[in-house]
Amino acid sequence: MNKNYIVPNEWSIIEEVFDAKNVMASESLFSIGNGAMGQRANFEEDYSGETLQGSYIGGIYYPDKTRVGWWKNGYPEYFAKVLNAPNWIGIHIQINSTNLDLNTCKVANFRKELNMKEGWLSRSFIATLKTGEEIEVKTKRLISIELNEVGAIEYSIKALNFSGEITFSPYLDTGIINEDSNYDEYFWETLKVVEGKNKGCIYSKTLKTEFHVGTAMKVSFLLNNKDIDVDQKTKKEEKSLTYTYKIKVLEGDTATILKYGSYVSSLNYNKNELIEAALNNVHDSSNLGFQELLNLQKKSWDKIWHSSDIIIEGDIKAQQGIRFNIFQLNQTYLGTDARLNIGPKGFTGEKYGGSTYWDTEAYCIPFYMGTKKSNVAKNLLLYRYNQLDKAIENAEKLGFKNGAALYPMVTMNGEECHNEWEITFEEIHRNGAMVYGIYNYVNYTQDFEYIPKFGLEVIIAIARFWHQRANFSADKNKYVILGVTGPNEYENNINNNFYTNYLAKWCIEYAVNCLNKVKQEFPKDFNRIIEKTNLTGEETFNWLKVADNMYFPFSKKHNVYLQQDGFLDKELIPVSKLPNSERPINQKWSWDRILRSCYIKQADVLQGMYLFEDKFSKDELERHFDFYEPITVHESSLSPCVHSILAASIDRMPKAYEQYVRTSRLDLDDYNHEVDEGCHITSMAGTWMSIVQGFGGMRVCEKGNLSFKPQIPKEWNSYAFTINFRNQTLKVKVNSSETIFELDGSKDLKIKVENKIITVSPNSLVTV
Amino acid sequence: MNKNYIVPNEWSIIEEVFDAKNVMASESLFSIGNGAMGQRANFEEDYSGETLQGSYIGGIYYPDKTRVGWWKNGYPEYFAKVLNAPNWIGIHIQINSTNLDLNTCKVANFRKELNMKEGWLSRSFIATLKTGEEIEVKTKRLISIELNEVGAIEYSIKALNFSGEITFSPYLDTGIINEDSNYDEYFWETLKVVEGKNKGCIYSKTLKTEFHVGTAMKVSFLLNNKDIDVDQKTKKEEKSLTYTYKIKVLEGDTATILKYGSYVSSLNYNKNELIEAALNNVHDSSNLGFQELLNLQKKSWDKIWHSSDIIIEGDIKAQQGIRFNIFQLNQTYLGTDARLNIGPKGFTGEKYGGSTYWDTEAYCIPFYMGTKKSNVAKNLLLYRYNQLDKAIENAEKLGFKNGAALYPMVTMNGEECHNEWEITFEEIHRNGAMVYGIYNYVNYTQDFEYIPKFGLEVIIAIARFWHQRANFSADKNKYVILGVTGPNEYENNINNNFYTNYLAKWCIEYAVNCLNKVKQEFPKDFNRIIEKTNLTGEETFNWLKVADNMYFPFSKKHNVYLQQDGFLDKELIPVSKLPNSERPINQKWSWDRILRSCYIKQADVLQGMYLFEDKFSKDELERHFDFYEPITVHESSLSPCVHSILAASIDRMPKAYEQYVRTSRLDLDDYNHEVDEGCHITSMAGTWMSIVQGFGGMRVCEKGNLSFKPQIPKEWNSYAFTINFRNQTLKVKVNSSETIFELDGSKDLKIKVENKIITVSPNSLVTV
Repeated sequence: MNKNYIVPNEWSIIEEVFDAKNVMASESLFSIGNGAMGQRANFEEDYSGETLQGSYIGGIYYPDKTRVGWWKNGYPEYFAKVLNAPNWIGIHIQINSTNLDLNTCKVANFRKELNMKEGWLSRSFIATLKTGEEIEVKTKRLISIELNEVGAIEYSIKALNFSGEITFSPYLDTGIINEDSNYDEYFWETLKVVEGKNKGCIYSKTLKTEFHVGTAMKVSFLLNNKDIDVDQKTKKEEKSLTYTYKIKVLEGDTATILKYGSYVSSLNYNKNELIEAALNNVHDSSNLGFQELLNLQKKSWDKIWHSSDIIIEGDIKAQQGIRFNIFQLNQTYLGTDARLNIGPKGFTGEKYGGSTYWDTEAYCIPFYMGTKKSNVAKNLLLYRYNQLDKAIENAEKLGFKNGAALYPMVTMNGEECHNEWEITFEEIHRNGAMVYGIYNYVNYTQDFEYIPKFGLEVIIAIARFWHQRANFSADKNKYVILGVTGPNEYENNINNNFYTNYLAKWCIEYAVNCLNKVKQEFPKDFNRIIEKTNLTGEETFNWLKVADNMYFPFSKKHNVYLQQDGFLDKELIPVSKLPNSERPINQKWSWDRILRSCYIKQADVLQGMYLFEDKFSKDELERHFDFYEPITVHESSLSPCVHSILAASIDRMPKAYEQYVRTSRLDLDDYNHEVDEGCHITSMAGTWMSIVQGFGGMRVCEKGNLSFKPQIPKEWNSYAFTINFRNQTLKVKVNSSETIFELDGSKDLKIKVENKIITVSPNSLVTV
Repeated sequence: MNKNYIVPNEWSIIEEVFDAKNVMASESLFSIGNGAMGQRANFEEDYSGETLQGSYIGGIYYPDKTRVGWWKNGYPEYFAKVLNAPNWIGIHIQINSTNLDLNTCKVANFRKELNMKEGWLSRSFIATLKTGEEIEVKTKRLISIELNEVGAIEYSIKALNFSGEITFSPYLDTGIINEDSNYDEYFWETLKVVEGKNKGCIYSKTLKTEFHVGTAMKVSFLLNNKDIDVDQKTKKEEKSLTYTYKIKVLEGDTATILKYGSYVSSLNYNKNELIEAALNNVHDSSNLGFQELLNLQKKSWDKIWHSSDIIIEGDIKAQQGIRFNIFQLNQTYLGTDARLNIGPKGFTGEKYGGSTYWDTEAYCIPFYMGTKKSNVAKNLLLYRYNQLDKAIENAEKLGFKNGAALYPMVTMNGEECHNEWEITFEEIHRNGAMVYGIYNYVNYTQDFEYIPKFGLEVIIAIARFWHQRANFSADKNKYVILGVTGPNEYENNINNNFYTNYLAKWCIEYAVNCLNKVKQEFPKDFNRIIEKTNLTGEETFNWLKVADNMYFPFSKKHNVYLQQDGFLDKELIPVSKLPNSERPINQKWSWDRILRSCYIKQADVLQGMYLFEDKFSKDELERHFDFYEPITVHESSLSPCVHSILAASIDRMPKAYEQYVRTSRLDLDDYNHEVDEGCHITSMAGTWMSIVQGFGGMRVCEKGNLSFKPQIPKEWNSYAFTINFRNQTLKVKVNSSETIFELDGSKDLKIKVENKIITVSPNSLVTV
């Protein structure tokens, strides 16, 4: 059964009952972050129940030695792990002589809220300790967007039935571990522990990668809302710094600790400045005060929501779901730093490791293009451009030559760090997504200059890869691509995956088109690139031989492209005929049984048709949708959104809505029974696409203009979304009878709605 | 480069130069064993250079927790590891105050010999210690075949240039580890250390599996060949027992220690008898004395060689190679215990783990049938019969029903213990080998009764597996078998592997034939089995639908069966065109590149044609050989033998000889650069087949009689082999002009030689 304990609310994620069984799931769901750092919603005080402690700093990682059962040539030596970072949130709490631990006391009036409108996390409860003391606790926590190296906590305790002593012991701890460490190695070395009055810092570095990090805290206290000074006792240990403060309270008194924390790292500072910088940060934020940090936070989120909010009327759970997705995406990545990217779990867990998958190009770029200024998507593209050399090295390791590039399946710094041969070596369609990301960006922004400046080198290296990776089949008299895994990972080492072959052909053709255009329009860049890459006309001629003669498996009987060679040898039994007891098949069936079944994990042929929808007729789309969707189990978080969009585009609104519900509340309702490990961040961008591209039917059409084909699920009264387009903001509101466009910009915008061209002028409404 | 340091000799493996680089390889090559226990040829004295310490007891294993990078549903929790057993051979040696360690002293006149005729290992050398003492050392060691729980060492030291003190410290040690432990766990618990005058015992058990083992030693001493009594100092530690004996010597004196060792285990004794039994063993063997143990050993080996020797005249390296193969096979398995089997490395290393692969049925059974009484091969079959329930459980784990069995890829006790999805779940052709082993045995021995008594239950369970594993392809209008790995492991997760499909069809047909015959001839057994298995006529009818309509990929253009669907999409470039620098491809190429190449690791289509040669015309064999052999890289130890046999059968003697040389000296010349890990024991049976079935052309033909088609490589003067057939011994000697048959039996034997039936009478020669 899916979980169902989150209280529906338009702007907040709320939990109203404390249940130890939900603690880890809530730690994921209530995570907070600011794009540069983030953390799971772990309790500040001690908790002896099941928990996954996690604080993360963007760009700080550890290359964990690869662990496999059977080594295959080509595996990387290391797997770049998202690092659990030093803990700055912790506060041990004692009431008289008893430790506060929700796992060992009676909890009432529990309430936890993640306020997405303003960007903070709160918790309140009444706890009755084993020793009888009753307290009311209220906490609030934020990770500041404005001051992006800083977080703050307000933690209040009211003595309900006793007079006595409340002890706060805030601490910093670098003795943290990663749960998924391959060899139980320790990833951090503590270099220095610096103490001071109400403040302190631990200076540490990651082993191997030698990232240096300063982690600081500063604390202050209130009694019944009045500042007080409290005596400090210091415990300085090898990997931790703990201060102890005892506050005498009378029954009814409220004692409060304010704790400010900061991370600074050698990504942004000289090593010798780190201790001072961290201490300055907590000093400054303490001076600002908790309330002022909250005010700044609200302003930051106001700005974000202004250009990205989606409003759904008549379906509060759908409203909560879509805002949760948008909120988490923004917490994970804000686009200000081209060295960062969007990890599959963001700052909500450590699973999978690496920070970058093809999800970024295939799912996240549209979201960031659609909700932020175009430099953000550009930063995501530059991330790959900056790693091109590593992608070429990676391809060389696998036997490719002459500057061919294979971008890694999973990476942190450009090096491959995944180690499953059927994925690492064979899920090469990811290379196509790299080029599609560029195409999509240029198409949407009309920033063609990106190609001669950066994109073309990537595109050439990838065209070279496809040219070398295909081989000529004398038997078929066509070029084939053997031994791949498509987006549908429930098939491995197959031949002629439609999606992969299609992307390969398209990449080559796009490369040649770009080359021609750059040659004419940017001759200087053209010459520079030709010199750098040693590209000849003969080589591109050979590329085109592959593209022109690419093989695509096709069934005449079913009149559809086949996912791969031999697909029709399978027994085609629709998912609806599978007993519930056998699902999800990835938990119930052995791997070989999954592989030889017809069941599809996520869109594969349909993923291709989604990316290149304009190349297929509506008839074709319908035929392929009707052939593949019934045998798709959607056991990837990336599956329902694409199906929702395609279903809407062929006017199958009930199916579109069904898949939308699944994608938008995937984590909130824990469809895949794994949210305790972290949220599915990248698929959240797909949820956004389900609204904008699916129900809104938004496409970029000829000359890079927008078209819309709005539809509305019968379950909703109306919905509205906001699109950033050429750095103007277009708001689209759809209800069952009309669609209203409103432009917050400076220039008229021509858009196409259901085949009719209309003009939207700045600050006016247009109704269709 | 291959290694080339073994001195050619007809009956011995000899090494004449001490080179630290060869120590680990020699430890493997010079291994000794008696089918029940065995050990690498580790030095008795301390050695600080690179070494792999290894002593092994047949049937004693440890289930090591599975280690993989990415878990796949269906993986077993444990991998049964061959256990490094307590060390009984060790003797620390001090000359005056200096430790003897070949890694730290000057070594001259080094000679190591593994005498295969008599079954012992010797070593002699002159060592000059850092402190100047010069000594001459002579050692001899054996593992007794007659007393199969006992081994003995004679270790002599002559003081060449000094008078002083020689200290012998013989010890027992249970503090041993497995190098390939997955989690660096310790596998043994020491329960008791028992000391005594010149003898002692350590009683220990394996963790988890709780095998209890007694390991004992007894020592005695000689000075210049006269018995002496020496004072004993005892050091008893938690996991070891060491005695120290100091002997005063004058220059020219020789001091000798005799050390007898014994393993006894709870496989054969009550636990509370083990200490006594082990001590009795060393007491008794010490009473017999080292020389008498050597005499017994020679007699045991005389008997073995009498029925299994192969004599090659004119090619001393080939002679040495084949005897080494026969010798190691007999050291590994003697067929007296149906609980044991033939591990891929025998008692020469710990790699791979498990004791049983399909190698036993496909390669080893012919050797043991051909060189020993028929009960030995029967014991190998019973091993699988006794594990049928586990094979059914294994199939259930993968979703099969109704008593279908899948025998494990690797096992110790019948449970699967391998964990590579493409092998564990997909290399299912092994199931066919189980049935083929039975067919082969019955055919050779005419012991059809084995079928109703034992074999049929196995055959039914496997027919059920194939019936369920195949599925009907509406597209092909045939039954197909999807997602398999054939014998050629350089292809994974392929469809319609010819070999697998062929065996599946054959297994079903053989099952139905056996059922019919048992019904008529053994009606009581038939009823018992039908009741036990709930087999119905309808079920076998459905089996036959699969067998009758099995799909086989075939190329009209090349007029050959294809290894799998889509094979002709590959670029077919012969191995001869591959630069040497790219070979072996399993070390030079990434795994995906190997997979999509045409290169074949070991016989696959040809393996099927080898097993069922009578079903294919010579034309067909030639066509398939010419198609597949040129793209075969023979990077499996099991490959050259099959190709040698097939080449001989189509009169390609140069190719047959080339492949024979490769198989027979695979380990001695270290073709695969890995002999340091242990020898390739099971492929050694293939080498034997290369002579008997290859050059001798021996086949079992109609009515279970033998036929021969002898040929001789031009490199040899003559060769001779001995065949056990229906418990009579037939010696076949071939030279370039004639073949001589000699029968050591009681009944005439009719054989067919080159299409001519001849009769060989007992104790007479027949020349053809």
